Amino acid sequence: MLYENLGINDQGHLTVGGLDTVQLAEEFGAPLYVLDEDRLRANCQTYVQSMAAWMPADSMPLFAGKALCFKGLYPVLKEEGMGADVVSPGEIYTALAGGFPAEKLYFHGNNKTDEDIAYALDSGVGCFIVDNHQELAALNRAAGVRGIRQRVLLRVTPGIDPHTLQAINTGRIDCQFGVPIETGQAARFAAAALTMEHLEIEGFHSHIGSQIFEAEPFCEAVDILLDFAASLRQEYGFVARTLNLGGGFGVRYQACDPVVDIPGTIRALADHLTRGCQDKDYPLPRILLEPGRSIVADAGLTLYRVGGVKTIEGYRSYVTVNGGMTDNPRYALYQSPYTVLPASRMMDTPDFDCTLAGRCCESGDLIQENISLPRPERDDLVAVLTTGAYNFTMASNYNRLCRPALVMIRQGNARLAVRRQTFEDLIACDL
Amino acid sequence: MLYENLGINDQGHLTVGGLDTVQLAEEFGAPLYVLDEDRLRANCQTYVQSMAAWMPADSMPLFAGKALCFKGLYPVLKEEGMGADVVSPGEIYTALAGGFPAEKLYFHGNNKTDEDIAYALDSGVGCFIVDNHQELAALNRAAGVRGIRQRVLLRVTPGIDPHTLQAINTGRIDCQFGVPIETGQAARFAAAALTMEHLEIEGFHSHIGSQIFEAEPFCEAVDILLDFAASLRQEYGFVARTLNLGGGFGVRYQACDPVVDIPGTIRALADHLTRGCQDKDYPLPRILLEPGRSIVADAGLTLYRVGGVKTIEGYRSYVTVNGGMTDNPRYALYQSPYTVLPASRMMDTPDFDCTLAGRCCESGDLIQENISLPRPERDDLVAVLTTGAYNFTMASNYNRLCRPALVMIRQGNARLAVRRQTFEDLIACDL
Repeated sequence: MLYENLGINDQGHLTVGGLDTVQLAEEFGAPLYVLDEDRLRANCQTYVQSMAAWMPADSMPLFAGKALCFKGLYPVLKEEGMGADVVSPGEIYTALAGGFPAEKLYFHGNNKTDEDIAYALDSGVGCFIVDNHQELAALNRAAGVRGIRQRVLLRVTPGIDPHTLQAINTGRIDCQFGVPIETGQAARFAAAALTMEHLEIEGFHSHIGSQIFEAEPFCEAVDILLDFAASLRQEYGFVARTLNLGGGFGVRYQACDPVVDIPGTIRALADHLTRGCQDKDYPLPRILLEPGRSIVADAGLTLYRVGGVKTIEGYRSYVTVNGGMTDNPRYALYQSPYTVLPASRMMDTPDFDCTLAGRCCESGDLIQENISLPRPERDDLVAVLTTGAYNFTMASNYNRLCRPALVMIRQGNARLAVRRQTFEDLIACDL
Repeated sequence: MLYENLGINDQGHLTVGGLDTVQLAEEFGAPLYVLDEDRLRANCQTYVQSMAAWMPADSMPLFAGKALCFKGLYPVLKEEGMGADVVSPGEIYTALAGGFPAEKLYFHGNNKTDEDIAYALDSGVGCFIVDNHQELAALNRAAGVRGIRQRVLLRVTPGIDPHTLQAINTGRIDCQFGVPIETGQAARFAAAALTMEHLEIEGFHSHIGSQIFEAEPFCEAVDILLDFAASLRQEYGFVARTLNLGGGFGVRYQACDPVVDIPGTIRALADHLTRGCQDKDYPLPRILLEPGRSIVADAGLTLYRVGGVKTIEGYRSYVTVNGGMTDNPRYALYQSPYTVLPASRMMDTPDFDCTLAGRCCESGDLIQENISLPRPERDDLVAVLTTGAYNFTMASNYNRLCRPALVMIRQGNARLAVRRQTFEDLIACDL
């Protein structure tokens, strides 16, 4: 099994968090998003405890809501001592509706409108991650109107490609987010920010990528950020109190993926930071991290029912299910790997090679190619693992399919956290 | 201008259907989907009139709702004499809510569940396009329970790649939809269907692809379908009354795309069909076509406001807008080409080379690369043309962004057809 919260019971059914997936699908219907809250909470604690143990005081993990966002998630995050990274007024609204403290919200985005800025300020969002000059000016103006001084971090681009470890001049500098250090633009951005009367510059933010399995790229980002911070201190006397290193910790989608040692990575990163600050005689800043995927991905799975099996003689076999790119567009978008299990027939021999296809009228609606299952029959239950991140949040109503329900499992009990959409929901905005 | 319904007024603003896009954005907000109903109706009439003029009696275009689907669209389609291709209970529900006659609905899909079949039968859907053996059995059973005989078409795969004109043994046979003719499987599929007591087999359906600009691939599909039909007549005495040739007529996304001569293509197709039937002494079947994109794509455009302009020195410039892959995921999915216009500054020189990026926290959230605009400023209005198809229907709430409103323009008047989602809508299903 890919994770220890999965099992097989006497009926040969896949279990998650101790519950029978076949019973879950019968009770709540399929397709169904299942989220193991116990595992999610444990993932939060891995960050919270490791950062408390090794990182400077007041360091904190911020959950990245772009990976998963619904009202019922935020009380859990609050209880686990997480902050939250939000990227839109809709995410702010959802977090606040879930009782999350505005003070612990960090507001991201490369295109914050004046309305977004007003909404976030009026909601009391703790910190803005300012992406560009236009936002800097707009936020300073809006904070001035309200007579406040808004805490901000400046988003800068260290120019690292985490998958090649080539610093600078890689493609990563060519991106729509933040301001690049290498070109000198970030220094001018910071200089402009320091003149803003209504902004309190707390430090810098960088995000180097996704699915990173080692500490090195983060350490390299720390080096570049500390060099940058040291040069700003020299020129302007400004000392950063906070470095936000973004997210990007990898998760295992398939058995061939490595297991990430998150506590070890956090400790290595903390040691690297401490040495770097000592070398430069720079006051140790607190660290923020923004895990999203690594908190929720492996806590989630999706259950589908098989509709049909079709063998194109001389080509391949397709197994179709009652969901697809509407509830999980990641294969259509990125050909993302997933592990697929025959949830209702885990004891049977998986000797049928096939492609798992969705139900949309679109040839790209595949969930995974080149998998093996026991030859499926209509109404068999299939589980796709590691769908806790970027599945619910990226879901659409393409083909006017209703978004599945989401069920959370805690201590052996399942509860509905997001109800399935109805046909009435589909036309709720149609006049 | 790409289309004749677009213009430039005295203020240098882009107009659509005679209305000022800047005023539309002020009145209805941005991002905004704009749909020129006059153009949409004219596109319907191109099909309706050409098919009435050249095709056999009772031939009909079916609008493919996967391209665009909301309640207010269906009264328009009904008035224009269209049938409709639906792919889910949600589309059926939407069409019926819009007052569309169930009799003129053709129900598609490669994974119709028992619940879907029951819903469609109980709604009185005119015809099922049966995709596979499992559906055949399930539908026959469900029709039997209801004591009815359901009209069906059988979806078969002619094995044509429309873009290479290579028949058979191309990749197109390897697809999750329908049953291939070439392998002999379609003949067995038809034989099985003909034994089904509660199904009335009306003929065959094939769909050969998208963005097809000539008649030839359709003619080739007709040849293959007629050969197939003739062999079935010989073996079983069955004569098809209907051939459904699917959709796929191309539209112009950019000035370099050809203009499709739809009436000419329909006439050529009708001539080809008539000759083919004469050659085989086969009774002329009625023809169904399923245009979706070519009805709505060029009737639609999307208006965005610019948030920021960012030049990565030595690389490129990004212009960000207040929408993106959430309202138009087609660039992220397929790198689809689009034409982008500076709606509020049409008289200014477009000398600023840039990439148009969306507002999602995702590096793939681009709308178009390598375009030229007058150097944009915050709050400029930008129009992306030809977004009437597969934009609204594929929209998501990723990053918890609200789906834009959709406005229809008819005879110089604009009316809200789909209201903008609110934050309350975002959490409507969150318990």
